[in-house]
Amino acid sequence: MSKINKISALSEKDGVNKPEILSSQVAKHIQEFRKKEISAAELIEKIISGDKVALSRAITLIESTNIKHLEKANEVINGCLPYANKSVRIGITGVPGVGKSTFIEAFGKHLTGLGKKVAVLAIDPSSTLSHGSILGDKTRMEELVKDENAFIRPSASGESLGGVARKTREAIILCEACGFDTIIIETVGVGQSETAVHSMVDFFLLLKIAGAGDELQGIKRGIMEMADAVVINKADGDNIQKAKMAKVEFNRALHFFPPKSSGWQPKVTTCSAVTTDGIADVYDLITEYITLTTTSGYFNEKREEQNQYWMLETINEQLKSSFYNHPEIIKQLELVKQQVLNHEISPFTGAQFLLDVFKKV
Amino acid sequence: MSKINKISALSEKDGVNKPEILSSQVAKHIQEFRKKEISAAELIEKIISGDKVALSRAITLIESTNIKHLEKANEVINGCLPYANKSVRIGITGVPGVGKSTFIEAFGKHLTGLGKKVAVLAIDPSSTLSHGSILGDKTRMEELVKDENAFIRPSASGESLGGVARKTREAIILCEACGFDTIIIETVGVGQSETAVHSMVDFFLLLKIAGAGDELQGIKRGIMEMADAVVINKADGDNIQKAKMAKVEFNRALHFFPPKSSGWQPKVTTCSAVTTDGIADVYDLITEYITLTTTSGYFNEKREEQNQYWMLETINEQLKSSFYNHPEIIKQLELVKQQVLNHEISPFTGAQFLLDVFKKV
Repeated sequence: MSKINKISALSEKDGVNKPEILSSQVAKHIQEFRKKEISAAELIEKIISGDKVALSRAITLIESTNIKHLEKANEVINGCLPYANKSVRIGITGVPGVGKSTFIEAFGKHLTGLGKKVAVLAIDPSSTLSHGSILGDKTRMEELVKDENAFIRPSASGESLGGVARKTREAIILCEACGFDTIIIETVGVGQSETAVHSMVDFFLLLKIAGAGDELQGIKRGIMEMADAVVINKADGDNIQKAKMAKVEFNRALHFFPPKSSGWQPKVTTCSAVTTDGIADVYDLITEYITLTTTSGYFNEKREEQNQYWMLETINEQLKSSFYNHPEIIKQLELVKQQVLNHEISPFTGAQFLLDVFKKV
Repeated sequence: MSKINKISALSEKDGVNKPEILSSQVAKHIQEFRKKEISAAELIEKIISGDKVALSRAITLIESTNIKHLEKANEVINGCLPYANKSVRIGITGVPGVGKSTFIEAFGKHLTGLGKKVAVLAIDPSSTLSHGSILGDKTRMEELVKDENAFIRPSASGESLGGVARKTREAIILCEACGFDTIIIETVGVGQSETAVHSMVDFFLLLKIAGAGDELQGIKRGIMEMADAVVINKADGDNIQKAKMAKVEFNRALHFFPPKSSGWQPKVTTCSAVTTDGIADVYDLITEYITLTTTSGYFNEKREEQNQYWMLETINEQLKSSFYNHPEIIKQLELVKQQVLNHEISPFTGAQFLLDVFKKV
């Protein structure tokens, strides 16, 4: 583009002064909400008063990779902690195509209809490479997203599943402090993300659709065992009969697994996110579970275990990451691996050598 | 007891001198074999010449908790490595009562009858608390223990399953260098020991007995999925019919699992360790597996993966152990855990605090 004249259509005339009072108000607004100079204390106060904008900002803060934000993020989380922990946390998983978004839309609307406040978060293993694909397109939940009593947040992107999971776990605390009493964590049936979600929810729901009759083929190891309920979606129209057959088959399969320590026998149910048939049943089933486990004390026990798990898991992850990300280890690891593969040294000698390298640096 | 006279029945007369030549030979023998002053190089030489006494001694050396023995142990292992890796490694698991010992006795005798050299090792999670209970009573394999082509070694005892598993993995290398071409690793169906065994063998065999018809109830998660074969033992006398029914049921259950990356469809078979019916079939089945996976290249791929796994696993274990065994961490961990449980700090703040403590010490 050629250089344009100094005085062009893009130049501005000196405007008239804005009234003092207005411009200072605007400046304050910008300061607070655009320049992010809002303090941790203010953020906490706004969150616990139910301010969704502040909640959103706080989640952005904990998702920040900027090391300077870490301290403030921790301050906000710890400030919110006393107001958290008062919700039902529901994990939902299912492979692409089972209709997770439409299910969550219908399920979430049912819950807000009952007077609940619903937050939807996501853990997406693909988001460690690109920006999250699930929940990324919020328009897929166009009714829920407009609902005042709902809050939808796409999956954070990050370097590792552990990192993304940690951020989601922290976001749960913030959502609860903001008054959300039902937290839905969505994930997709690939990678290790189910295990991560399972370790941060009270109830784990596996979403399926009826297929060719061999519903159990190809279910990833462990997923069925983690499920507190299998919900067969798209049970509408021509699919109703197939869905009923799938229900029988899943019920039989669930009996192969040892009883759960919760004392809960996992249930299978069918629903249609489109007609909303069966959606209410899903929530009734969850309520039944919560009543059972709250009475038995299992509900709190599990949460305490999860808290411990996350502390130890974070420690273990950090220990590994400081080892494997050390320049000297990066430099030597491949070499040592090759020696082990060539049977020049044993795996243990290789490990010892690298640990000695790490100790010296 | 009252003090006895200086000259009593317990005193000894000066004996006659032994012939020079004999006593020096004896002394040398004692030096070599009792005082354990045999060098690493000599141990290696003896092991690769097929000396079972030297093999036994080397395993004792790697099992030693004396830090001074570590270097020598590593020297022996690395010296044996070029002669190792030439065997079929078979993992056998089953809950107490399925007849593991009698099965291994019958199976082992069948193998030595075919001209194989068989080493039997064990990983016993209970041995981390007491001395190993499985294989501890060698008389349970009284035929095999007398067999010149067999070597039986009870489970090492140790502080952690990881430690015991590591020692067993190292013992495999020594046994192979000593000429054993079939290595059997026994474990018991409790704890995490199956996963450890699975990660060091080529073929994983689940031993079961026929019961009341609901064979699948109570099978621990994951075990069925790890199995390359389910062998129903005690298929003799009145039990034959029940065993056949169990076979049908296990076959059906195995089809619920996704295909294995080995390309192998897990098999179910019946046998009797007492009558030896079906014992030969078990080995034929393993041979079939080895042929398939050797041809496809999976056999070597898996071994290489296992080598890598053991190196990284050892590193991760050591990193954790140096953290959690540090006096300052031991001192603070419970306190921080309590703060997390009381919702005073988040699990992540707790983790960060402890990591900071560790970094400073």
